[in-house]
This record gives sequence, structure tokens and C-alpha cells, in this order.
Amino acid sequence: MTADAASFDLAPGFRAAAVACGLKAGGALDLALISADRPCAAAGVFTANRVKAAPVLYDQEVLASNAPAIRAVIANSGCANACTGPGGMADTRRMAALTAESLGCGAEQVLVLSTGVIGRRLDMTKVAAGIAAVTSTGAQMGAPAAARAILTTDTRPKTAGADLTMGGRRVAIRGFAKGAGMIHPNMATMLSVVTTDAALPPAALRAALRAAVARSFNRVSVDGDMSTNDTVLLLASGAPAGAVAESDLAAFTAALTEACTSLARQIARDGEGATRLVEIAVTGARDEAEAHRVADGIARSSLVKTAIHGGDPNWGRVLAAAGCSGAAIDPDRLTLALGDAGNALTIVRNGLPAAFDEREASSRLRDDPVYLHLDLGLGDGAATAWTCDFSAEYVTINAHYTT
Amino acid sequence: MTADAASFDLAPGFRAAAVACGLKAGGALDLALISADRPCAAAGVFTANRVKAAPVLYDQEVLASNAPAIRAVIANSGCANACTGPGGMADTRRMAALTAESLGCGAEQVLVLSTGVIGRRLDMTKVAAGIAAVTSTGAQMGAPAAARAILTTDTRPKTAGADLTMGGRRVAIRGFAKGAGMIHPNMATMLSVVTTDAALPPAALRAALRAAVARSFNRVSVDGDMSTNDTVLLLASGAPAGAVAESDLAAFTAALTEACTSLARQIARDGEGATRLVEIAVTGARDEAEAHRVADGIARSSLVKTAIHGGDPNWGRVLAAAGCSGAAIDPDRLTLALGDAGNALTIVRNGLPAAFDEREASSRLRDDPVYLHLDLGLGDGAATAWTCDFSAEYVTINAHYTT
Repeated sequence: MTADAASFDLAPGFRAAAVACGLKAGGALDLALISADRPCAAAGVFTANRVKAAPVLYDQEVLASNAPAIRAVIANSGCANACTGPGGMADTRRMAALTAESLGCGAEQVLVLSTGVIGRRLDMTKVAAGIAAVTSTGAQMGAPAAARAILTTDTRPKTAGADLTMGGRRVAIRGFAKGAGMIHPNMATMLSVVTTDAALPPAALRAALRAAVARSFNRVSVDGDMSTNDTVLLLASGAPAGAVAESDLAAFTAALTEACTSLARQIARDGEGATRLVEIAVTGARDEAEAHRVADGIARSSLVKTAIHGGDPNWGRVLAAAGCSGAAIDPDRLTLALGDAGNALTIVRNGLPAAFDEREASSRLRDDPVYLHLDLGLGDGAATAWTCDFSAEYVTINAHYTT
Repeated sequence: MTADAASFDLAPGFRAAAVACGLKAGGALDLALISADRPCAAAGVFTANRVKAAPVLYDQEVLASNAPAIRAVIANSGCANACTGPGGMADTRRMAALTAESLGCGAEQVLVLSTGVIGRRLDMTKVAAGIAAVTSTGAQMGAPAAARAILTTDTRPKTAGADLTMGGRRVAIRGFAKGAGMIHPNMATMLSVVTTDAALPPAALRAALRAAVARSFNRVSVDGDMSTNDTVLLLASGAPAGAVAESDLAAFTAALTEACTSLARQIARDGEGATRLVEIAVTGARDEAEAHRVADGIARSSLVKTAIHGGDPNWGRVLAAAGCSGAAIDPDRLTLALGDAGNALTIVRNGLPAAFDEREASSRLRDDPVYLHLDLGLGDGAATAWTCDFSAEYVTINAHYTT
């Protein structure tokens, strides 16, 4: 489910707060704290970029040694703390240490997230004052404020949740995310914190998170660029229990995938300059991995996305993008439809243009979401990817990001 | 050398002509004929897209059986004849047959090129009349007209040449190309015909062409999209001779690479919406292939290209693009400079921002060409790639291409 951002709350056992510490201009919220009432289990998935920001390297280190006993996440926007060398890593460690000191826990129990401009050092005077404020009672309390504090070029906060029953107990999953540009697998370039009161050890959380990310955040492309800071954290406040039943873990993974998919769709919809969400379903591939390659190839095609923006049913671009994805394709078996399942308009059948009404096709491309369905006619592999249309506004946003 | 498009001519032994047959609106030239006075040797390199246009499949067939005795190339713009099924293939064969009939040669001696909108059938009534006209004396004779007739969204013709001595004889290489959108390796999405009066058999031409394309057309990206129609043809009119000396073939390959590089740079400079050429030199990679991956990753980054458009020295995007290229990178060894070799401004040294004047850096990004030089500090591998800046005009051009 998509949670209403204004009434959004974290899962039981977690609190959130946010302040404006001055990293972002105009007094916008830019520092968020997510804290657990008790040490909780955690897992993370991180960018595959070889240029990794200091907080990514730091969090990987913390989770390697201390995943069962995390107490807090401190997150700033306005500065990515990437390409900042040993000084940047010292800044990340200091963020964790200051947060830990205020909360009365160990620095090795605090995770750090940063997002914003690459290549600039954090203003640690502002950050230190911000951490003092956000850990005090004066901070704007609540998850909606935290969800806003991690945004950069996003136009709206992204929150989602799912509920399920595990071992006879109701369990909540509640998460929020940011991301609008530099969005591409692996993984969708963003930050996300997902909380749950499920009782799961780190290994189970890791398995569930990897599976969920593979079918949600890793299926989003805004601009084909992959960031240095991508991080999804999953924190579980449930009291330690015995072995987890296989079926409970499967149910949890499914619910987590649902919540992450909602966040991923919200990220694509809020892509820089976007006016609508585009959902690309590929079926009939030899396997799921090949279906994903094709869907991803279409999702990252600037030509497909500009055509959608203009409502131009230039379907040859979709076929061309599929053809150079690297997946097996038989051009004579391709079938392409626009619109969702109940109301699909077939525009290519077996590789050749079908008789379709151009105006009707154009109108499907102005829907929000736009649905493209490409069937490869080769097998049972299926995958869905999300992107957005591509407008001139994307260029305007990105031509002067740091100046 | 960049040949002046107005006085451009093919190599000795070849003639060109062009007419407007009505495939393009407004009476623009849209059908070109390149003919050889005698049967000549030929080689081709084609798109790696699995969705291949009819003329690509047809030319591959012709060159497989008849590469030593080609007589003509017939080329149209305004319609790509891609995704057109068996009917489209019949149209391509008919173009070859009609051309052959007029010229008095066999259809299997005629190569065909098409470019334009994907998924529409050729208007063969117009094409047939055009072939009758272009093979008659009434056609606008000359290579400059042919170079214009293959353009689509290009704003200018692209011509180039190189000269060398082989076996004591002066040899000319003269070529032209089109391409502005859907440009990406492998190979740069375009059409090109290169002629020479060198005496080389098809196998030598193939080897030289593959080597030249690898370092020229395959190093250009405008938008990361790969077309269904990419074709480079090399035709050699030299009289059959004995075995080719190794050193002559090396000299020919170097000269051909020079001519193709000039065409590739012209394609990048004329990328849809482009206001300047961007040359990306990567050095210090483990090998040339890895250097190419990094240069290509930077060349296709929308974020890098929009930043250049805005004159914004947002160098973190360059490092992030390098980091997700898949090549080996040590972030602490990256050095980035703007400007050409004699006048370079270092902005990142060993992964950290150097002390540089932002205004000076911004001014380097407004040069034409813009030079980026990234040194990886790992080995001797080097490669250069070309792209263009990314403006809002790209979106305008592509949002309504068929409507």
C-alpha cells in the first residue's frame, strides 16, 4: 500500500525526528534521525558503483560486525559525502559518534546515510549542531518530517507500508525513500529506510531485503545513471524469537516486496522532470533475467521516453531498444500493446504493425501510468520495470545542479 | 581531414547522384546513388541490434557472396524499412533490382541503405520513380548532393577524407555519413559510405574497416540508443593487384581510421540538440577495452552531458559514471582534467577535489570541443570517446518525431 505521507508512521518500536541544520538552502529539513527503542536487527543493500560514498563504506562495515544490535540511523541531505577521501570518512564516523553520544549507545550501533552533491565535504559545524537538535526534544518529531528531510530534487516524500501475520502475530512494514535523479539499477539510485516490528534475525532480513530489492528498486530507471550513495536499510524491532518458519519468511518477503515496489514506483513517478509513470511489462522471455534486461533496456531509452512524453506512438523505438538489450529476441515474434491488461491496444503483432488508431495510441501514452506490454513469444520469463517520461525539464534541472 | 562538404568528391572510380523522390517532406533530397565505374571490392560493418532492418539483412547476404564485384549503393532517407517483415525485404530487393536494371548490372551487385522512421513501409511508387531519376542524367550529380540526401535529423552533411601512399601510388579515401539520434556503439547508429581507389581485396577491406570502426564510429554516443539500420560500407575501386604488403595495409587502416574518426566526431557534434562536441579521453586503465568502457560510460551519462550543457563543473557525476561502467576503478587514483593537453585544468587529483577556479572550469565546459581527461592511474590502457552536450532541444526533437 502507498501510505499517506502526512499520517505516515514507522513500525512499532521506532521513532523518527528531523531538523533543518542548514545543509539545504531556505531552511528546509535536511537531517533525519530514525531510532529504535531497543537494539534491533538490521540489513542493508548498497550501490554497486565502484565509487562508493563514505557512509556506504561505513554502513557496510557496521553491518558486517554489528547487524543484530543497531540503535539508530542518522541521515542528511544536501551533501552526498562522496569522493571526499579519508576526511569524508572521518566526517561519517563523527556523525555516528555524535548521534551515539546523545542517544547513549555505541557509535558502532549507528548507521549513516547521506545524499546530495558529490565531491563536497560536509559542513560539520552545522551537522554537529543538527545532531544535537535532532536527538533532543526540540526536533520536529515524526516520520513525515524524516521522510521530507532526506529529499533532494524530489518533489514529494515517498512512503509505503504493508501488513501481514507471522506466527499468529500482526506485523507492520513501514518505509520511506528518496530519489529522483541518478536513478538506475543496480540499484535504483536512492536512499530508503524500511522498518518492521517482525522478529527476524539479520540473516533472514538480508535474504528478504535482497529478494525484495531485486524486484522493486532494481527495476527502476530514471536516467540510466547510478549513484555513489544508494542504500536501502531494513530495521526489525521484533523481540528475538526462535527459528523462523519458512512460510513466515516467504510471507514477509512478499509483503516487503510489496512495500518496496510501492516506493520504487513513487521514485519513478517523481523522476526529474517527469509528468507520468511508465510501467513496462515484458513477458514471453526465455527467463526472468532476460525479461528484466529487455524491460530495463526499454526503460533507459531516451528515445522511448521522449516519444512517450510527446504522446508519439513511435513503437519502432521500443522494438529497437529491446533488440539491443542483449537478450534473445526473434523480431518476428514481438507483440507490443499499450494500456493495462483490461484495456490494451495492440500496436505490433508478430513484429509487424497492427491496424490501430494512432489517436487512440497517442491517448494511451498520455495516461498516468503509461503501460507498455511487450511479449517476446519465446518462453515463460516475465519482468516489470518502471520509468517515467522524459521532458525538457530534466535538462533544466540538471544543467545547473551545483552552480 | 574534414572535407569541405560543398566541394567534397568521392575517390577516383566512383560517381554520386541524388534526387528528391518525395519520401522526405518539402522536396528535400532523399535518394542517393553511389556507383562504381567497374565492379569493385566492398566490405561492411552492421548494427549489433537483434532487430535489423531489411537493408541490413540484405547487404549482409550480398557481401557474403559477392563482395569482390559490387557496382552500386542505393540509399534512401525518410524511411528506415525496419520492422517491416517479408514485405519490407521484398521492397529492399526491388530497390536493388531497379537500380541494377538501370545501370546494366546484376541485382546482386547493388547494396541498399535506408534510414528514417522505423515500422513504416517504403512508398515504392515514389522510390521506383526516384531510382529511374537518380540513375538518369537528370539527377543532381555529385557527392555533396548524395551526402545531403541521406540525412534525417542531421543539421549538416558529414564528409571526410584521408590520403596516403601505397606501393608507390597515391591513394584517396573519401567518405560521408549521417547520424544525429539513436547513436550508440556497437555501432554508432548511422550510415556511412567510404570510397577509396586503393587496390585491396574484400578480406583486407573487412579487416581495415573493422579496425577503423572500432576506434571511430564505435566510440560515439549521442543518446545511448542503438539503431536497427547502422551500416558502414567501404568500397575500393583499385584495379586488382597481387598480395598486399603488411605495411601498406597498416598505413591504409591508419588513414581509414583517420577519415572515420573525422566522420564520427562530426556525428557527435551534430547530435540532436547538441551545442558542442565533447571529447572524453581515458588513460591509465588496465587495458584499452577497460578504457573504452569508462569513456563510453561517461559519454552516455545524461547527468554528465546536462552538466556540460549548463557549464556546471559537477565533476562528481563524471566519477560516478566511471564507477558504474564495470571497469576496474580505484577511486583514490582518479585524476580529472578539463581542457586540451596544452591547457588542462586539473579539477580532481587522486580522487579528491583539486583547488581550482570554478569560473575557469565552467568556461572550459563552454569550449567547443569540450575536453575531459580522466586518468585511472592503474595501467597503460587508453581510449577516446565522443559525445555532445545534452540540451532541452533533444527532447523537443524526439517528443514528436512521427506525429
